[in-house]
Amino acid sequence: QIKEITWTLEMAEKGGYEHFMLKEIFEQPRAIKDAIYGNIEGISRVAEEVLKADKIIVTGMGTSYHAALVGKYLIQRFGRIPVIVEEASEFRYEYEGLLDEKSLVLAITQSGETADTVAAMKLAKKSGAKVVGIVNVVGSLATRIADVTLYTHAGPEIGVAATKTYTTQLTVLTLLGISLGKLHGVDTTYIENTLPRLPEIVDSVLKYNEKLQELAKRLQEKRDYFYIGRGISYPTALEGALKIKEIAYVHAEGLSAGELKHGPLALIEVGVPVVAIAPTGKTFEKMLSNIEEAKARGGLIISLGDDIRLQEVSDVFIRMPRVPEEVSPIVYVVPLQLLAYHLSVLKGHNPDRPRNLAKSVTVE
Amino acid sequence: QIKEITWTLEMAEKGGYEHFMLKEIFEQPRAIKDAIYGNIEGISRVAEEVLKADKIIVTGMGTSYHAALVGKYLIQRFGRIPVIVEEASEFRYEYEGLLDEKSLVLAITQSGETADTVAAMKLAKKSGAKVVGIVNVVGSLATRIADVTLYTHAGPEIGVAATKTYTTQLTVLTLLGISLGKLHGVDTTYIENTLPRLPEIVDSVLKYNEKLQELAKRLQEKRDYFYIGRGISYPTALEGALKIKEIAYVHAEGLSAGELKHGPLALIEVGVPVVAIAPTGKTFEKMLSNIEEAKARGGLIISLGDDIRLQEVSDVFIRMPRVPEEVSPIVYVVPLQLLAYHLSVLKGHNPDRPRNLAKSVTVE
Repeated sequence: QIKEITWTLEMAEKGGYEHFMLKEIFEQPRAIKDAIYGNIEGISRVAEEVLKADKIIVTGMGTSYHAALVGKYLIQRFGRIPVIVEEASEFRYEYEGLLDEKSLVLAITQSGETADTVAAMKLAKKSGAKVVGIVNVVGSLATRIADVTLYTHAGPEIGVAATKTYTTQLTVLTLLGISLGKLHGVDTTYIENTLPRLPEIVDSVLKYNEKLQELAKRLQEKRDYFYIGRGISYPTALEGALKIKEIAYVHAEGLSAGELKHGPLALIEVGVPVVAIAPTGKTFEKMLSNIEEAKARGGLIISLGDDIRLQEVSDVFIRMPRVPEEVSPIVYVVPLQLLAYHLSVLKGHNPDRPRNLAKSVTVE
Repeated sequence: QIKEITWTLEMAEKGGYEHFMLKEIFEQPRAIKDAIYGNIEGISRVAEEVLKADKIIVTGMGTSYHAALVGKYLIQRFGRIPVIVEEASEFRYEYEGLLDEKSLVLAITQSGETADTVAAMKLAKKSGAKVVGIVNVVGSLATRIADVTLYTHAGPEIGVAATKTYTTQLTVLTLLGISLGKLHGVDTTYIENTLPRLPEIVDSVLKYNEKLQELAKRLQEKRDYFYIGRGISYPTALEGALKIKEIAYVHAEGLSAGELKHGPLALIEVGVPVVAIAPTGKTFEKMLSNIEEAKARGGLIISLGDDIRLQEVSDVFIRMPRVPEEVSPIVYVVPLQLLAYHLSVLKGHNPDRPRNLAKSVTVE
């Protein structure tokens, strides 16, 4: 007797996951591995170009802009040179005539077709600057403009909200950081030692999936979220908030923790969720004190970190594996993706197709 | 017969206004005038220092950080040199060893005592960088660290939410821009001609006070606001949103208009207020198209601009006097201050003493 196949093609493509987004979140260990091994050879040539430049601008839009912010920290920390970071939609209108042959523009775009980022790359090229692209889609427009392209090797991403393409962008930037550090004689062995274990570390965080679904249930009725971070964790706060905005349609805002006392603290009242990105690192003590301030105003504190002291000041403590601060953005964003995913599903939305948004913004 | 004085000292100090904040908003024409005439002589010496530097970092916190963002645009536009802008709380932990004698740090602080900004200035000083302060309070800590201090001459500000100290910071930065432009042979006459009229232009905008009170009544029940701007108007969007956060305790977020399609547009639904800062300038057409997108999703559009086309796409159009884009941040922030003030009062809060906040953040 012939058995009927009840799976549709789309279901097959989802590999048993309810949505592409969830599948893509779970693909991250594999994607990160591919990003490492796909770039490990070519990266030093790019690092040399970076060090030749006297002005470095990193640019992108949306999630790729958050990767650009992480990139700035990594290049500064290991390349020992101040870096400018700009949204591509700002860069393209403000930098005409400000760049020359000694400038380098690092442009990050998943699709390679983002209109503002492509325009920024063209402007850079016209002014004689070196243009390096970090791109996912092979053969895209950006790869034809860039002098050098570093591919993220994430594979096709169907969900509109970027997940694996973000963590692979960060992986490539981490490789660049290490390579810069080596050229500078900065000790990077602690990061190099972590890198091969990164896929399994991310895998261990994915095991929190159910815990994050529970958390999403608890937070389901909340209307406002604040995500806070410092230094290299500030972009993680922005990205966590963006995920919630995009697919759960809830007003979440990412803030630099240092800015809390300069205004936003007035909004923290009883029950307002404050998600704190707090890996061990040079500003951990400051973060702890920012969290305490938010807690004192009644904020519902959800903290991500590896220091057990966080447990005391948090309503929910997501204990993260201990990793060097420089790779923490890759690991810490994963629970935030899962939280946003579950919030979206619980609210009855389709996380793969958020309203009003397109996968790549090819118009301006 | 002896008449009893029913005014308290505080009432006298408020000069007939209900709150210090309103008084200080209305003092802006005078304060801006003082900022111009108090700096017109010394500014060219600072401009020369700026042009000698090969790395320029502008820093501050809160409202002063927004001034720093405007400063970046002005220095880039007239000094023809890329500028880094950083929150002082980030700068102080990330720039150790990245600066030298050829760097210049422009630090903006109303009180001159902001802990993070003062720490940033010390770090800069230690690395041999030139340090220029833009400060309101004479004799404050920042003025003792800075190599040169430009005073904003705003007079004492009692309201916790910065108003006149912000517009005077912007005035000083505008003078610096003009001075840089002159040294570069860039035509700045169109701004110079506007400058002496600036107090009366701001005065003409203050006449919208009642209209903004009406608008506040209409918006009173709204829970989320988005403020959008591009280029030099992006900091105005951030500052407008910060005022609402600080004193009306409503979740308002400032966004770069170019980022809308990369996520936040998912939050725009029927009735969500979108405040668009849209002066005539090089990105006006892009702004118009961003406004149309928000409108198409049902957003309640409140636009500020001088182009009559805004009227068609807006629910509320605040017609602004036509000014050069470079001075528009000074003029456009005024209605946003008034809107926040009236929202705060209507909600029964004391705008002079917002909960959780201090006038100057002297602890970290």
